[in-house]
Amino acid sequence: AAPPAGAGAADRPRAMQVLDRYIIFEGDEGVVVIDQHALHERVLYEQLRKRILAGQVESQRLLVPRPVELSAREAATLLDHQDLLSQLGFGIEPFGTNTVLLTRYPALLARADLDRLLRDLAEQIGCGGPAPTRRDLLDELLHMMACKAAVKAGQRLTSEEIASLLEQRHLIDDAHHCPHGRPTALVLSQAELDRQFGRMG
Amino acid sequence: AAPPAGAGAADRPRAMQVLDRYIIFEGDEGVVVIDQHALHERVLYEQLRKRILAGQVESQRLLVPRPVELSAREAATLLDHQDLLSQLGFGIEPFGTNTVLLTRYPALLARADLDRLLRDLAEQIGCGGPAPTRRDLLDELLHMMACKAAVKAGQRLTSEEIASLLEQRHLIDDAHHCPHGRPTALVLSQAELDRQFGRMG
Repeated sequence: AAPPAGAGAADRPRAMQVLDRYIIFEGDEGVVVIDQHALHERVLYEQLRKRILAGQVESQRLLVPRPVELSAREAATLLDHQDLLSQLGFGIEPFGTNTVLLTRYPALLARADLDRLLRDLAEQIGCGGPAPTRRDLLDELLHMMACKAAVKAGQRLTSEEIASLLEQRHLIDDAHHCPHGRPTALVLSQAELDRQFGRMG
Repeated sequence: AAPPAGAGAADRPRAMQVLDRYIIFEGDEGVVVIDQHALHERVLYEQLRKRILAGQVESQRLLVPRPVELSAREAATLLDHQDLLSQLGFGIEPFGTNTVLLTRYPALLARADLDRLLRDLAEQIGCGGPAPTRRDLLDELLHMMACKAAVKAGQRLTSEEIASLLEQRHLIDDAHHCPHGRPTALVLSQAELDRQFGRMG
């Protein structure tokens, strides 16, 4: 029997992870090197932002609310921003001077260290400069959450994870930068590669 | 049953062809981009050179010698260098003013256009400048044969062909340059990639 059409093409890997942190694939613009963490962060940031605008952040409710010990200042900061945090999917209740009760958290952060997460949130809110706008603050927290939930550099990905990440790349507008403005992609055009190899055509 | 050891690693492609002309893989020195033609040319050149030194160039004998029409000058040039060409695996016999008989050719060049090959050989020998040494001439012809027998840019390779080419890379001394001195490999070190992505560590 004849091989199915396109069988030869299917044999070729379309993308490859290198150094456990970059993904290389062939795009329309040439050879593209992707920073897996930066791209994933960017994808998650955009997804979260859309969900928040639509009021649809998925939240995971804790069966038993979790007391989290903080400094008095950190606890006060979080309680001062209960509304904002609720929008992001966090349920925070008062529980004494140095402690808050975490009742729910964004499903996206299921694998995060929740105690540390709350301390980081308090710090991030506190660092916003003199009276940051609610919008700026929300944006900063989104960045933080996206960064924490994204795959890390050094994490080995399966071919399915690589394919999924590259697919999501097309869903966002400016895929070439992470939310912090760092590039997520480095493009080696064919012309540039040819030049480097002395293939002047 | 438990998966065999290393099954996860086997899932990852070790190398990938891009733009139908470059091979990318992760080496000790970082991400390595290979010019498939330049590397193959280099590999074949080294193999041929070793075989010639050992007097073991594999030759394919033609059942029916093939008359090849040339200019009178080209025919004379080839016949003047019968010995040298014999060392390379070519059998050339006289057959009139404008024609030579090809009796055997290097097995490596089985898929080459033999008529064109002989014209190119004559030209290459004729272009050697004033009285090239036998050694220089031999080297030039080796380069030409290696170039003609090597995979071309634009040729799609199977994963087996990619693996085989990369394996041969270790068999040669200076794999980083083709016989003409063009680089065969471009290395993107992790430090360099990290720098480009703003990962200053």
